[in-house]
Amino acid sequence: MAREFEVIERIARALGSNSERVEVGIGDDAAVLRPPTSKLLATVDMMVEGVHFDRAYSRPDEIGRKLLSINVSDIAAMGGIPRFALASLALPRGTADGFLDEFYVGLREQAKRFGVDIVGGNLTSTTGPMALDLTVLGESSRPIGRGGARVGDCVAVTGALGGAAAGLAALQAWGNDARKKAALPVARQLTPEPRVSEGRQIAAWATSMIDISDGLSSELHHLAKASGCGFKLWLEALPVAEDVAEVGAALKKDALAWVLHGGEDYELLFTFAPEHSKTVENWATVIGEVTAADVVLEDEDGKAVPLAAEGWKHQW
Amino acid sequence: MAREFEVIERIARALGSNSERVEVGIGDDAAVLRPPTSKLLATVDMMVEGVHFDRAYSRPDEIGRKLLSINVSDIAAMGGIPRFALASLALPRGTADGFLDEFYVGLREQAKRFGVDIVGGNLTSTTGPMALDLTVLGESSRPIGRGGARVGDCVAVTGALGGAAAGLAALQAWGNDARKKAALPVARQLTPEPRVSEGRQIAAWATSMIDISDGLSSELHHLAKASGCGFKLWLEALPVAEDVAEVGAALKKDALAWVLHGGEDYELLFTFAPEHSKTVENWATVIGEVTAADVVLEDEDGKAVPLAAEGWKHQW
Repeated sequence: MAREFEVIERIARALGSNSERVEVGIGDDAAVLRPPTSKLLATVDMMVEGVHFDRAYSRPDEIGRKLLSINVSDIAAMGGIPRFALASLALPRGTADGFLDEFYVGLREQAKRFGVDIVGGNLTSTTGPMALDLTVLGESSRPIGRGGARVGDCVAVTGALGGAAAGLAALQAWGNDARKKAALPVARQLTPEPRVSEGRQIAAWATSMIDISDGLSSELHHLAKASGCGFKLWLEALPVAEDVAEVGAALKKDALAWVLHGGEDYELLFTFAPEHSKTVENWATVIGEVTAADVVLEDEDGKAVPLAAEGWKHQW
Repeated sequence: MAREFEVIERIARALGSNSERVEVGIGDDAAVLRPPTSKLLATVDMMVEGVHFDRAYSRPDEIGRKLLSINVSDIAAMGGIPRFALASLALPRGTADGFLDEFYVGLREQAKRFGVDIVGGNLTSTTGPMALDLTVLGESSRPIGRGGARVGDCVAVTGALGGAAAGLAALQAWGNDARKKAALPVARQLTPEPRVSEGRQIAAWATSMIDISDGLSSELHHLAKASGCGFKLWLEALPVAEDVAEVGAALKKDALAWVLHGGEDYELLFTFAPEHSKTVENWATVIGEVTAADVVLEDEDGKAVPLAAEGWKHQW
């Protein structure tokens, strides 16, 4: 009896916040929060078992951590500061109490790292797979959208690409042995890190920005469409994440495809006027330029081929 | 190919907002919104097929309408004004395009009625049943929580009770014939109406407030726990929704159990100092009083029996 309410109480105790921004947190009809003085950002993203994660590979705390990270990444992609989160979870009957406790450990720890208060949520049962939905609210005084890229701008990316896709391939091929055999790519897949502080710096002068959730090619097409522009990407400039080439060789898979289309790296892709190149080069990689139309990939011989959007897309 | 993005574009066009409160709506990494000047309210609630709705009885537009209403009801229960919504939907493969279009018609129409802008969301596939999650943001200058009821206060409820549960029983017994044989209870089940304007008025002087989603008995226990009080309810004062007694008689079910424990009526339950009784009686029903401890139901002979919390609870 009353499992739902008991669990909510236990979670509420564990998540209790002392933040001045939270007047009423978990346990009432709605959270009562101090609103930002600048602009309010809001985003939501769901992880469904069997589609976005597999409990054979991901520990419950890693699932919680990733759910927080992928949503915070959307706030980072606007140049914002994440503030609040609400978790809405559908759990199959028979889910062990331990799952939820460990899930919330990961969610809470990652939330704490980014200064996010978990202020509400919902628990329900389901006859199907777990569906874990998170809403994150944030703020920004100068949010950067997708629509401001201008011909002649540079395009750059934080960090390196392909790691998350290589990690997934490694887990699918080697199971939990992949945690040793491909530790870095697996970490990129299971516990990606949102680029919040980078996003805030970039927002000072970027003309457009997006995070790489679906894949580099797919995100470039999103920017192109929203900005009414094209892109020329330089193949040799693309930053490849550590051990991606090695995993590709071991599995006889195309590592370049992971870099171009793999997705889930949660790096920031952004455009900016060339005068900022020196600043950018300290902590990001310039990978190409904004053109009038078409998204193309240019190899070292100057030969350009069209780069189609081949990232992850949901079908139903 | 690219089903997800095409559908998002179509939805974004249909939902386009001219509100001054929305700087960036659907289609970027996060929505950019004008924050409230008072306090920010945030709530989330999920409807899972097979648990919360059955497509055999509910039309897609009715599902959208209800999803909006049950979340707006949580804002109403704080005395707030709903402003923004984000919809995160997991759809089984094979879901017809028409479902989503009709769902959004209902969601949008109901959102418009309550001045809510749909500013973001997420679409994913699932191997299981539909999971439809909605976040609603609102504002209030004087949010009313669950914890302020004082001994000697009156307790009252808007509208009438038991209709939603009777409607569900009718649908389960008679299928779609119930729409004719028990039109009012069925409407209460499929398309409940959140009490936003009532909530705003009540907030001016209420000491505690909650909406009836799980059931009257369950909500009373929530208020009792949060406020550290008890309740004495007067059996004969309970407002019974139209045709509930008739459906109970026809189905040989206990109509009083629907009134006490049925849930999903989305009426507001609130406490207030007795001097406001005259005001309240114009548009709500005083159903009892706040006591020091225990939740009891008193019959017309003055005999009181304990009222346990028997509303809906999720088990997993």
